[in-house]
Amino acid sequence: MSSAWIPHWRRVSRGLCNWATFVDESQTRVVEASLALIRERARLKAAQVRGKGGSIATTCLVGVPLGHNSSFLQGPAFAPPKIRKALWCGSTNSTTEEGKVLDDVRVLTDAGDVPVQELRNCGVNDEALMLAITDSVKLVMGEQPLRPLVLGGDHSISYPVVRAISESLGGPVDILHLDGHPDLYDAFEGKPFSHASPFARIMEGGHAHRLVQVGLRSVTQHQREQAKRFGVEQYEMRHYKRDRPILESLELGEGVKGVYVSIDVDCLDPAFAPGVSHHEPGGFSFREVMNILQSLQGDIVGGDVVEYNPERDTRDGMTAMVAAKLVRELCAKISK
Amino acid sequence: MSSAWIPHWRRVSRGLCNWATFVDESQTRVVEASLALIRERARLKAAQVRGKGGSIATTCLVGVPLGHNSSFLQGPAFAPPKIRKALWCGSTNSTTEEGKVLDDVRVLTDAGDVPVQELRNCGVNDEALMLAITDSVKLVMGEQPLRPLVLGGDHSISYPVVRAISESLGGPVDILHLDGHPDLYDAFEGKPFSHASPFARIMEGGHAHRLVQVGLRSVTQHQREQAKRFGVEQYEMRHYKRDRPILESLELGEGVKGVYVSIDVDCLDPAFAPGVSHHEPGGFSFREVMNILQSLQGDIVGGDVVEYNPERDTRDGMTAMVAAKLVRELCAKISK
Amino acid sequence: MSSAWIPHWRRVSRGLCNWATFVDESQTRVVEASLALIRERARLKAAQVRGKGGSIATTCLVGVPLGHNSSFLQGPAFAPPKIRKALWCGSTNSTTEEGKVLDDVRVLTDAGDVPVQELRNCGVNDEALMLAITDSVKLVMGEQPLRPLVLGGDHSISYPVVRAISESLGGPVDILHLDGHPDLYDAFEGKPFSHASPFARIMEGGHAHRLVQVGLRSVTQHQREQAKRFGVEQYEMRHYKRDRPILESLELGEGVKGVYVSIDVDCLDPAFAPGVSHHEPGGFSFREVMNILQSLQGDIVGGDVVEYNPERDTRDGMTAMVAAKLVRELCAKISK
Amino acid sequence: MSSAWIPHWRRVSRGLCNWATFVDESQTRVVEASLALIRERARLKAAQVRGKGGSIATTCLVGVPLGHNSSFLQGPAFAPPKIRKALWCGSTNSTTEEGKVLDDVRVLTDAGDVPVQELRNCGVNDEALMLAITDSVKLVMGEQPLRPLVLGGDHSISYPVVRAISESLGGPVDILHLDGHPDLYDAFEGKPFSHASPFARIMEGGHAHRLVQVGLRSVTQHQREQAKRFGVEQYEMRHYKRDRPILESLELGEGVKGVYVSIDVDCLDPAFAPGVSHHEPGGFSFREVMNILQSLQGDIVGGDVVEYNPERDTRDGMTAMVAAKLVRELCAKISK
Amino acid sequence: MSSAWIPHWRRVSRGLCNWATFVDESQTRVVEASLALIRERARLKAAQVRGKGGSIATTCLVGVPLGHNSSFLQGPAFAPPKIRKALWCGSTNSTTEEGKVLDDVRVLTDAGDVPVQELRNCGVNDEALMLAITDSVKLVMGEQPLRPLVLGGDHSISYPVVRAISESLGGPVDILHLDGHPDLYDAFEGKPFSHASPFARIMEGGHAHRLVQVGLRSVTQHQREQAKRFGVEQYEMRHYKRDRPILESLELGEGVKGVYVSIDVDCLDPAFAPGVSHHEPGGFSFREVMNILQSLQGDIVGGDVVEYNPERDTRDGMTAMVAAKLVRELCAKISK
Amino acid sequence: MSSAWIPHWRRVSRGLCNWATFVDESQTRVVEASLALIRERARLKAAQVRGKGGSIATTCLVGVPLGHNSSFLQGPAFAPPKIRKALWCGSTNSTTEEGKVLDDVRVLTDAGDVPVQELRNCGVNDEALMLAITDSVKLVMGEQPLRPLVLGGDHSISYPVVRAISESLGGPVDILHLDGHPDLYDAFEGKPFSHASPFARIMEGGHAHRLVQVGLRSVTQHQREQAKRFGVEQYEMRHYKRDRPILESLELGEGVKGVYVSIDVDCLDPAFAPGVSHHEPGGFSFREVMNILQSLQGDIVGGDVVEYNPERDTRDGMTAMVAAKLVRELCAKISK
Repeated sequence: MSSAWIPHWRRVSRGLCNWATFVDESQTRVVEASLALIRERARLKAAQVRGKGGSIATTCLVGVPLGHNSSFLQGPAFAPPKIRKALWCGSTNSTTEEGKVLDDVRVLTDAGDVPVQELRNCGVNDEALMLAITDSVKLVMGEQPLRPLVLGGDHSISYPVVRAISESLGGPVDILHLDGHPDLYDAFEGKPFSHASPFARIMEGGHAHRLVQVGLRSVTQHQREQAKRFGVEQYEMRHYKRDRPILESLELGEGVKGVYVSIDVDCLDPAFAPGVSHHEPGGFSFREVMNILQSLQGDIVGGDVVEYNPERDTRDGMTAMVAAKLVRELCAKISK
Repeated sequence: MSSAWIPHWRRVSRGLCNWATFVDESQTRVVEASLALIRERARLKAAQVRGKGGSIATTCLVGVPLGHNSSFLQGPAFAPPKIRKALWCGSTNSTTEEGKVLDDVRVLTDAGDVPVQELRNCGVNDEALMLAITDSVKLVMGEQPLRPLVLGGDHSISYPVVRAISESLGGPVDILHLDGHPDLYDAFEGKPFSHASPFARIMEGGHAHRLVQVGLRSVTQHQREQAKRFGVEQYEMRHYKRDRPILESLELGEGVKGVYVSIDVDCLDPAFAPGVSHHEPGGFSFREVMNILQSLQGDIVGGDVVEYNPERDTRDGMTAMVAAKLVRELCAKISK
Repeated sequence: MSSAWIPHWRRVSRGLCNWATFVDESQTRVVEASLALIRERARLKAAQVRGKGGSIATTCLVGVPLGHNSSFLQGPAFAPPKIRKALWCGSTNSTTEEGKVLDDVRVLTDAGDVPVQELRNCGVNDEALMLAITDSVKLVMGEQPLRPLVLGGDHSISYPVVRAISESLGGPVDILHLDGHPDLYDAFEGKPFSHASPFARIMEGGHAHRLVQVGLRSVTQHQREQAKRFGVEQYEMRHYKRDRPILESLELGEGVKGVYVSIDVDCLDPAFAPGVSHHEPGGFSFREVMNILQSLQGDIVGGDVVEYNPERDTRDGMTAMVAAKLVRELCAKISK
Repeated sequence: MSSAWIPHWRRVSRGLCNWATFVDESQTRVVEASLALIRERARLKAAQVRGKGGSIATTCLVGVPLGHNSSFLQGPAFAPPKIRKALWCGSTNSTTEEGKVLDDVRVLTDAGDVPVQELRNCGVNDEALMLAITDSVKLVMGEQPLRPLVLGGDHSISYPVVRAISESLGGPVDILHLDGHPDLYDAFEGKPFSHASPFARIMEGGHAHRLVQVGLRSVTQHQREQAKRFGVEQYEMRHYKRDRPILESLELGEGVKGVYVSIDVDCLDPAFAPGVSHHEPGGFSFREVMNILQSLQGDIVGGDVVEYNPERDTRDGMTAMVAAKLVRELCAKISK
Repeated sequence: MSSAWIPHWRRVSRGLCNWATFVDESQTRVVEASLALIRERARLKAAQVRGKGGSIATTCLVGVPLGHNSSFLQGPAFAPPKIRKALWCGSTNSTTEEGKVLDDVRVLTDAGDVPVQELRNCGVNDEALMLAITDSVKLVMGEQPLRPLVLGGDHSISYPVVRAISESLGGPVDILHLDGHPDLYDAFEGKPFSHASPFARIMEGGHAHRLVQVGLRSVTQHQREQAKRFGVEQYEMRHYKRDRPILESLELGEGVKGVYVSIDVDCLDPAFAPGVSHHEPGGFSFREVMNILQSLQGDIVGGDVVEYNPERDTRDGMTAMVAAKLVRELCAKISK
Repeated sequence: MSSAWIPHWRRVSRGLCNWATFVDESQTRVVEASLALIRERARLKAAQVRGKGGSIATTCLVGVPLGHNSSFLQGPAFAPPKIRKALWCGSTNSTTEEGKVLDDVRVLTDAGDVPVQELRNCGVNDEALMLAITDSVKLVMGEQPLRPLVLGGDHSISYPVVRAISESLGGPVDILHLDGHPDLYDAFEGKPFSHASPFARIMEGGHAHRLVQVGLRSVTQHQREQAKRFGVEQYEMRHYKRDRPILESLELGEGVKGVYVSIDVDCLDPAFAPGVSHHEPGGFSFREVMNILQSLQGDIVGGDVVEYNPERDTRDGMTAMVAAKLVRELCAKISK
């Protein structure tokens, strides 16, 4: 086997990150091989899309099976294959609500998973792992016309993903963030990469301009202060009746590089999405999320669907199907 | 045993169907015996109702435990006994929301099941089976003042049932069809009797005048074309907020023989009805269905509740209770 | 207990019973139509078997979906379709352990269900219902070479079934009875047809010569006295280690019309068969039951598998598969 | 119904009731020891609260694990420890939606359970048991600034609790009652203390002035008559769309000693709260309950959350979390 | 209320323990009231037994709902009410396998639970809590002819229980200990009262003479050393085939005050008892445990059934029934 | 069956196979990158082991998440991460029954998963996929002292794994195969790589000398013929009582390169292992499998644990723990 497939990551412009300083040499080889594998898959898929022609933007799934940054349960590490199974399950049509056909490769393709568990098992630390996720997303971004739609994993992965997008595009994005919780902790239980903190990291890093949070129903005093500090726009469920017209006519992305949509499945009420780690009653119905998403205006350059926890789902995977439909309808907004 | 119970089906006016041409002689005897049993039960029940006096229309349950026309799962074949169990379960009052008393035989009675599985096991083919269902419903229609409320089974059974009603009454009906899917396929996976096709068959057969579909959230291009071809009125969930006033003031049945209501349990969001084969998030809440049903105006001559799949239900039968309450409130509209 | 409730069935030699005296005229017509339907199905199936030729004895399934004679839970009424589904489920080969091929109609055929729930819903009382079950089994026995294997239902159904066999054959049989409980109550909670009493009725009726009970682990003083009164041979699980050689070399049927095998699924430990109404730990392993059954010697003229309760089974139907395999291996003993 | 079973409790002003006349001497000692234990715990907790200073009203939990007055299932007896577990579960923040901090002892404290099962097992009868509950709540009321929030148990416990509050305060209260059923039966299945009857007892006893019932969707003719007789204000779900503005601006407590809020978890639709004994589809969403509760005006002197049935809940305790959040937000209204 | 119910614990000979030195004054009052309640219940029950006459030893249940000393899951705190429910569930006869009648109060009675959760919630620390458990069991021992059968809770409770029995009787006992694990850690995760350590504490305290452990299948090097240090007799499952004759003819109690039997439900294979915190495949079948227990010789003065975890049990409580039958058959050995 | 589909793998002695001829160029790059990643991980792990010193043979896990060669359900594709989770779950000690310490890297290490799903998603066909699995195992074999223990996946993976081992070692092995089914079909449903066929492929390929199958209880006539054709030694469960002494003293590996142990989890009775696709009652208890495994003599050079299906497991993963303990005890046999 030729060594040609091992890239000189660090020299690449639009810069893959310098994770090599965090790990030892044999780990470096494992990380490099992991990234090489992502790159080859993204290349193959992009070539297929371009071969068909006519696509300006194609949604490309990337799985990030990472659950250990959660404060409570770690089941989201098992989510990506379950969401994919629901996505292609024979029980539903492969069209979106407005009529896009998902089994057209120009609409939806898939670059596979970042091998998160194996990297950790090889001793790769959290900081290097986050960098490897960022690099993986950049590799997908580098293959035109792919736009990443990331399958979590817990919410901690939004930080390295948004970082990748912002750095690839050369500037901040606007973020629509649907969630029961603001995830703005400075650090949670001492962990800066906690799934309760990604949006603090994103704002500190200058990766986002506007951050609009909707669906909130569990906000501590510290998180309110963080929101004020970062200029976050927060819409709480207890005022939903009042805020509804605003939420169903959002326009984002003005003056920035595009819009990113991050959907924590627990933005939904547990009745609609029991398969999440944190049951916080009083959330959205599925249709209410659709109304917000389908009326959103802006150029969506990437997104994620996170915190689906298969270990809490019903036996038949009710929430897997919910996560899959969120993926479908996000795809309908991204691909064109 | 006297042979008196073997009817001369073919001579009967308002015509029981000519299924005998589809099956061999011994199968014919099994089908005839099956119909004879339905007839005797319907007679006994109608006599009880008339004995009490004062009823213009009495809802009569007919179970059709048929699941093999489904494209994905076949659990609806087990539904009728589970719906009946929920209907009479001690956990709720036997009154409707507006106060009708269900354990009055003039309000609700039961002719039992068409022995679908045994007919199939005896080699009766699909076409003859569909005719046997049509004949069974006609036998119930023939006993005044019974009006059939059919417990499916998958949605394929709506075709033989509506055919029976239309042929018994001598003309088409209007149909209110609540469903997540339009079920208008010309044929699905090559099967004309598929549960994805009944309303194509009904429209082709001239059994319905207006077909109003509500709750839709998975419509393919082919189905949109079929809707246009047959003049179907489709209301999709993504426009529900806009359409709501129309849906809560429907008037049907003008110029036709009456109104038929077909409720696919998956018109509800999976949160409210997990026990269905096809999870399509974004559906109605139970109260939204009630609002449509309770405000509906027209003379309801029959109906069905289909696609309840006990094998996907929660352990305690949450969806069985939902199906049972749909039956109850339909009964409240039919019986008078 | 007065003997008033014991009807003069025995006078009707091999004939269908005179249940018509217990029900009114319209009910009579419903019962007659029900029996006619069983008869037609049994005829059709027997003709198919004879058409293939070469069978001396063919197992014919008869479902009796009756659960209301249970003292605790009534789920066994839902068992027959679930056992059939497991029997033909694609997850296993259709051969018995010793190599008989089950999808050969000469080995296994099916006469469908007695419409128990509809008979009750038409007001047919328990005594007439028991007679209708007896008549149904007689109709199957009347069609050579069919031998009935009954799918319960609760254990109360063994009484009318054994009565049918004994009366059809013109004399008593020997019974191998596998169960966690002796079911010998004179009457339980005042009900002579209780599922705790069938073997008292069978012994009183002279339908059995030897009654060998194995698997017992919950025997009251009253039941010990009943066993003594009727000469029942009881083997309790607490002495299983000692009794095992006897149980694995049983020879039955000498000097009588044949052997009947009645298997209450709860003869198995709940670990092997959770789907039963009465969890009594300390029962047989599945292999231990196989050892007893496969080594049994005698001409088996009929049998039953009862007390499977789908409402207590695991989601995937572990116990349905157990019940189905009991049916399969019983079939291997009956058919020849 | 004779009034013989109504004791002369009202004469014992603010005093502990004279239940000793209903039980024998050794039972008396057991009841006294039980009350002594409640008293010591309430004292310890009140001292802690006063030690911190600054609280006018502190919510104090009291568990009443009583399920035997239910007509259908008795699982609510197991509810209090499950609700407590959900309340302090690490999966959510310990703040209310408006920002109160629950792990401040001045906001929420806990006096433990009334030992209901042991009292019954010692032979204490229902009447004496109800008095022991009343006395327990009075003991909590007697410790300033504690206000009781009772964890049921079935709904029968609301009668002795409201009686305790009314007698402690020296006059009637207004009640906001959220429920799928009016619970106004004169007696249900012959039991005056049935969980279908508490509000009849409360109204007869003069313990409430206004009784406002919301969420109703199963009301019999008898219950409509009882409502008229007692002047109850009933809001049914079938008119919710019309009534919503009224329900979201309730003002209670004028001219009386305060407001009591009784929440039967089945006021919610089963989709949101599957863990209840009586599934009655068509109920509130969780947010709709929040809207009513958070907009309620009046001085809330006590409350209960009842009819949570852990034996019907999902494996992960979805409904336990719902009950816990109802407790949290009630606490937010009570504590100040 | 008279103050007579507050005992002078410390003066009592056969000494209740000196827990008062561990807690502050108000906690002391709560603990005293808790013990007073246990004493009154034990007195009432003992009086009932003596009133019937003729009993030498009566099994008296004591629940200890304690789960926080577990290393992994804490569900055993919820076990006692679930075991009691299974014990009296209508699905089985109330006779033991050899014929003892359990609803005779001379065979089985119940002193209720030690209020473990409330004591902890009042700030009582672990050492005082263990003393309160010891005192509770002594109070039961003090009421002739009661002998304690304790319902755990996790295995940590065996230490205070055996201590109470040994101190009450004035000398050590022999212990038959059925378990998948030896529970002999010096301390586990730094906790001397861990559920992995009780038998180290018992041996150190001189409360047992012989300790016979059977069912073991997970033994670390440290635990093998502890066994050697304390002279524990260990029988591992991997040698069960060889050891079986020894285990089915155990004679214990010679030269000591009696025999104590401690059954960790996980001595059974998870197939038979899924409802335990630690699944360790390869354990006993239920019948194998019965064979050991029913053949055991010696005067059994007390026992426990621990580590049943309802949160891991099947929906229908398979393991609750297993735990209940262990209680039943232990009762058959104790009562006489 | 034509031999056309059998490639010339054997010519490539110990070398990596020539799968590149089966896929196009971009697929080739993806496969190469996948293998490179396996190689880097195996190298890193082997270096760690050698760094500690003293190991002759170290068990190295390799996951093969492949489920699509199953005839019935495809859940085994989700198994490897679930088995790993159970393996390191805090609920059990990390020692084997005989005392080996599993968290010593010289006893057990892990090379991660072959990215089966991504390869398929990139269009890699079944033949190339099987070659990639063979190559992956060879890469692990190439790193001394690692010996592969493969986590399936369905049973089809045993063919490429045994091929890798045999080709790496330069000759056939003996195989101990524990299974409910012989998996010897020439082809099943037309698929030569079906999970019903791997041992036909292995025997045809000359990769095994002796093939000893134990646990069988579903054998068709065709499979009996295949066994005769290949000289397979079959032990059926119906003769287990007779065969037990043979099975508990197996000596394998004489005159060949070593012994391979393939464990289909369904060799166990469904009571012990519900999480399998094919429930075939009457299998081994877990202890019976242990007895066979722990007494096995021979040099074990590799093995697999296959057909664990998480989608059929209990909520708490009973069968995951069973699969994990099979892995543990196999590891105890392999590592030295």
